[in-house]
Formats: sequence, C-alpha cells, structure tokens
Amino acid sequence: MRIALLGGTGDIGQGLALRWAYDTNHEVLIGSRDPEKARTAAEEYETELDSRGVDRTIKGFRNEMAADRADVAVLAVPPYHVGDTVDAVADKLDEETVLVSPAVGMKGDDDGLHYHPPSTGSVTELVASRAPDAVPVVGAFHNLSADRLANLDLELEIDTLLVGDDDDAKETVRLLAEGIDGLRVLDAGPLANAAEVESVTPLLINVARYNDGMHDVGVRFT
Amino acid sequence: MRIALLGGTGDIGQGLALRWAYDTNHEVLIGSRDPEKARTAAEEYETELDSRGVDRTIKGFRNEMAADRADVAVLAVPPYHVGDTVDAVADKLDEETVLVSPAVGMKGDDDGLHYHPPSTGSVTELVASRAPDAVPVVGAFHNLSADRLANLDLELEIDTLLVGDDDDAKETVRLLAEGIDGLRVLDAGPLANAAEVESVTPLLINVARYNDGMHDVGVRFT
Repeated sequence: MRIALLGGTGDIGQGLALRWAYDTNHEVLIGSRDPEKARTAAEEYETELDSRGVDRTIKGFRNEMAADRADVAVLAVPPYHVGDTVDAVADKLDEETVLVSPAVGMKGDDDGLHYHPPSTGSVTELVASRAPDAVPVVGAFHNLSADRLANLDLELEIDTLLVGDDDDAKETVRLLAEGIDGLRVLDAGPLANAAEVESVTPLLINVARYNDGMHDVGVRFT
Repeated sequence: MRIALLGGTGDIGQGLALRWAYDTNHEVLIGSRDPEKARTAAEEYETELDSRGVDRTIKGFRNEMAADRADVAVLAVPPYHVGDTVDAVADKLDEETVLVSPAVGMKGDDDGLHYHPPSTGSVTELVASRAPDAVPVVGAFHNLSADRLANLDLELEIDTLLVGDDDDAKETVRLLAEGIDGLRVLDAGPLANAAEVESVTPLLINVARYNDGMHDVGVRFT
C-alpha cells in the first residue's frame, strides 16, 4: 500500500510517517505545499529510521503529486488548511484513493481547549463535503499525540477510532492503522458520528494540563 | 460523609449507591420525587448488599429531604429533569453542600448518539447556573455505564473526570469517587471544560454499538 501524508512535514504527519515506516512495509510519501520542504522532512525521517537500523526510502513531493501516487492520502494538516488542501488535490483523487481526515477544530481560552467544529458538524464531514463525491472519506487518528507517535521509543498501547460511510475504505484504513504496533482500532460508526470522536482531542489536552504525569495522554476504551 | 442520590431510583443512582455502600463507609441516602419509591429502591439495594454479606442501612426520602441531610448531593436524574430537580432542592442547599452533576444531554438518530448540550454549553453548567450562587457544583461520573456500576461482580478499572471551579468541593468529590474500587479520578479543569467531558458519553455508546464485546464500555486515559 502507498500512503501519502499530505502536510507530512507537520507533527502528526511526522509521527504517522515514522510509525508506518518503522512498523510496516507500506510505502510512505511525504507531501507539502512546498516540495523542497517535503524532501527535507523525508530525509530527516529516513535519518531517524536509519539511526534505529531501519533502512527505508521515504520520498517528498508537492501535495498534489503525493496524492496522485497514493492509495491512501492522509490530510495531516491543521484544520484551517483542510479545505484548501482537499481542493488542491481533488483532481488527483478518485474512487480508488481513500482520503483520511485526522484534524480537529479547537479553540482555547484560559480554562482549556474546547471543541470548535466547522459548520458541517466536524472536520471529517467538512472533508467529505469538499472531496469529489466518488472519493471515500474515513476519519481516523484524531486523538493521537503527535509527540508520542514520533518518539519510537514509546509504546503506544492506545486506541484510535474510525468513522466512515464506506465499509471497504474503512477496512483499508483499519488494516493500515493496525499495522502500527500498540495501536488498537475501534469503529465509531458513520461519518455523522465524527464530532463525538473529534471532541476527545481537546479533552485529552485538558487532561494533560490538569493532571501530573499525563503529558501526551491517549485514550483506551475498556 | 453523607451522600444523597437525588433520583437515586434510576440506573446511575442505583449503580453509585451500590458501589458507595459496598466499597466505603459513607452514609447513602436515596432521593426521589416519590418518597415511597425511594424507600422501595433503598430496600432493594439493602437486599442486594445483604446477599453479598454486607449489612448496610440505606434510607429513602423525598428529594428535598435527602438533599437537606446531605453533605454531597448527586443529581442522578435524566438531563431533562436536572433543572427542575435543582429548583426543587435549592432552598435545602447551602455552601456546605456539594452538588454533583453526572447527566449528559444526547440525541439519537439512525447513525448513533450525538452530544446535545443545553444552551448553557453543558448540563454541568446548567446545574451551576440554576443552583444558588453559594452552592459549589462539581461535574463527575458522566461517562460511567450504569449497568457496569450496578453489577458488583464487575471490576471497574476505568476513569472518571472531574470539572469544577471550587477546589475544595472538587477535592471532596475526588475522595468520594476514589472510594469506589477500580475508579480512577482525573481532573479535567474548570466547569467551562464540562462539554468535552460530557460528550464522551455518546461516543462510548457508539463504540459499544459498533464493536463486538464492548458492551458497557468505559474510558481510560493512558
């Protein structure tokens, strides 16, 4: 499987790229609006893996080219860039490409972070509304700490939740996610249930803030 | 400590009453709009505990009388009864009584359950807005399965999150909650962070629906 991390120079993109390259044999592509930045990040990830004795080739591309080559494209960009990124890569996607949305809209105040979805109800549903109709969209990886993903010394032992309306696409993403050691995948239902998944992310950041020793906390359903 | 479970004849009230009576020495009072119903439920809980070799006295009262006697009053009523219940007991509460809100507003459709807070932003904040100003309000026990609580054969091994603006009241509720075996207590910050806590409840119900073997699922932050 060929996975493109659009915005893969950012922290969640780095974490997913490193985990997939370290734990699986999937091909990992890094996308960015700036192809030079993508290539630099890809080289850094290769160096990190090499330092752990893992010889992997990770290539960097402009987002459009990464999406064009991908079986699965992950929108690893901040929520306010999600719509523009979908628009930029839209004509490179078709019914054979699964588009994955991990972003969460949040706003902060003195008390903590709060869930702040777009008018579509969730970022995941925003992606579905902006993507070409034939392209299957799956929400996943919303509640993962980027730093915890990116530190390959840390065991994950956490859950991630999937939402989506296309069962085959969901199954593809489930298999990719389960390839990451210590990540358990649970189904949270259709895209319409995305808000309840996304809103866990600000909660995790609040829990990290208000409790000692809970930095980069994740969630387990038990 | 004397704990009143207002609406303690319902399922979450039953679960908390049984756990506190079984695991701690706190005095447990059952409240209801109908005192006869409260007394019947209290007797049933005593019988359940007696069958496990635990001799406890649990008394039933009208909600107002239970609140009047309580150090901590838990609003174990459905979300659409929370406001009326606060109004009914308001003149029995004072700065010495901690009012605890575990209710969550949800609505369902074919896809699953969705978070549906009141205009105050959360049920917990609704309680704070309706209670007399001097009465400290703490949100807790939102994400617990009532059936799992009520079945004393089951180990909990789950977390509950506290929100509140009064540190002393929060500490009181933390100690009460930690008295329940297998329940870990985490701080989610001020009352303003209640929505992110409450919205986990519909997510848990969706996870239970879409995954095998996840009936009565709870959450652990790890």
